[in-house]
Amino acid sequence: LADAHVVVIATPVRAAPRLLRWLADAAPDRAILTDVGSTKRSILAAAIRTGIAHRFVGGHPMAGHHEAGWRAGRQALFRGVTVWLCDGGHVSQAVRMEVEALWQSVGGEPRWIDAHQHDRLVAWSSHLPQLVASALGRTLGRKGIGRRRLGPGGRDVTRLAGSDADVWTDILLDNADLVAPALEAMAAELAGLIHLVRDGDEAGLRQALADARRWAEVHATDPGDAADVG
Amino acid sequence: LADAHVVVIATPVRAAPRLLRWLADAAPDRAILTDVGSTKRSILAAAIRTGIAHRFVGGHPMAGHHEAGWRAGRQALFRGVTVWLCDGGHVSQAVRMEVEALWQSVGGEPRWIDAHQHDRLVAWSSHLPQLVASALGRTLGRKGIGRRRLGPGGRDVTRLAGSDADVWTDILLDNADLVAPALEAMAAELAGLIHLVRDGDEAGLRQALADARRWAEVHATDPGDAADVG
Repeated sequence: LADAHVVVIATPVRAAPRLLRWLADAAPDRAILTDVGSTKRSILAAAIRTGIAHRFVGGHPMAGHHEAGWRAGRQALFRGVTVWLCDGGHVSQAVRMEVEALWQSVGGEPRWIDAHQHDRLVAWSSHLPQLVASALGRTLGRKGIGRRRLGPGGRDVTRLAGSDADVWTDILLDNADLVAPALEAMAAELAGLIHLVRDGDEAGLRQALADARRWAEVHATDPGDAADVG
Repeated sequence: LADAHVVVIATPVRAAPRLLRWLADAAPDRAILTDVGSTKRSILAAAIRTGIAHRFVGGHPMAGHHEAGWRAGRQALFRGVTVWLCDGGHVSQAVRMEVEALWQSVGGEPRWIDAHQHDRLVAWSSHLPQLVASALGRTLGRKGIGRRRLGPGGRDVTRLAGSDADVWTDILLDNADLVAPALEAMAAELAGLIHLVRDGDEAGLRQALADARRWAEVHATDPGDAADVG
């Protein structure tokens, strides 16, 4: 550690602030500290409180899947992947470029974002899908329907249900204030679908499915969606 | 058609009964009629009403994906796939074996089931995942979050949102009475998660995620789950 140039924290998000405080002393003063956690407000606040915001950059590569641990590693994991980067406004341009270069060296595409903005975006784009998959898995489990009864599509929808419970408990509690509204929006959407199905509302049901399809078909490289979620 | 030995109906499920009635006259008396629709009660009722239940077998291969049309076809589509078969109790053993052999010839694994049982099973194992994916896609769309903002896991969860709206409107209306309770169970599960997140209930949240994970990890070939959903 004494010779470290960059130190990357890769722990569950609620353990990271404590580790960061320890690294503030243990790592060389010149070392850049960064992380790969799924939430960014708490770790950035810890960096500011610890007085190391000038050499801390928060990072979050949008890679990975439901598997965890060494076995889940693979070549080209970060290739073409958006890597969100946040700082507390106290970081020099040189440090920013250093962290960008680190991610670019493994094929990632760094993009700067405000920490609150980031946490709101992932509450919807990542934490909500995780909870939806888990809720569906648990619903089917309660009904006694095994995963092998699902077709290929249903298996896709529930793949994330296999995610690590400890890692995700941490993420969801750390981001609870922003995750709850996303969950509530999903619940409202489901409630609407229940009415459409119960009422046999053909036009409404077709509209709902067509809306979802239009959303799904927007090409991955199209512009038009933004990171700034209101 | 005059020389047909087996006729396979492959249309949206609400169009199939009418086609079946037409085939009752148009196809030779000795021809076996079957279908590949996602619901089985309505087509079987039509076969009985039309007086052709002795030569009709309902079929439903658990294959396919969100794409549709000729482009969605592929080699080995049915290999290793469960193919549900239903009859109205009026079909000879010879006819049953003929339809089984048809599916086995393309690698499918035929399995007999009661039509009501089938429709209840797919309400949970297939129609619910479809609606969950569509609801999530629509929720994210309303929030202005494009699909490209999702990581690999979120893209899995929402893949089915790209399914054909007309095909699915038909399926969901045809099976509405059994789909609605499945949707309501999912809504109750989501409501529970909202409480856990809002309350910061660490133990409850970990338990929910661990339940889902245990469900997801049951190996595809394990016994223990059944087609008989209560």
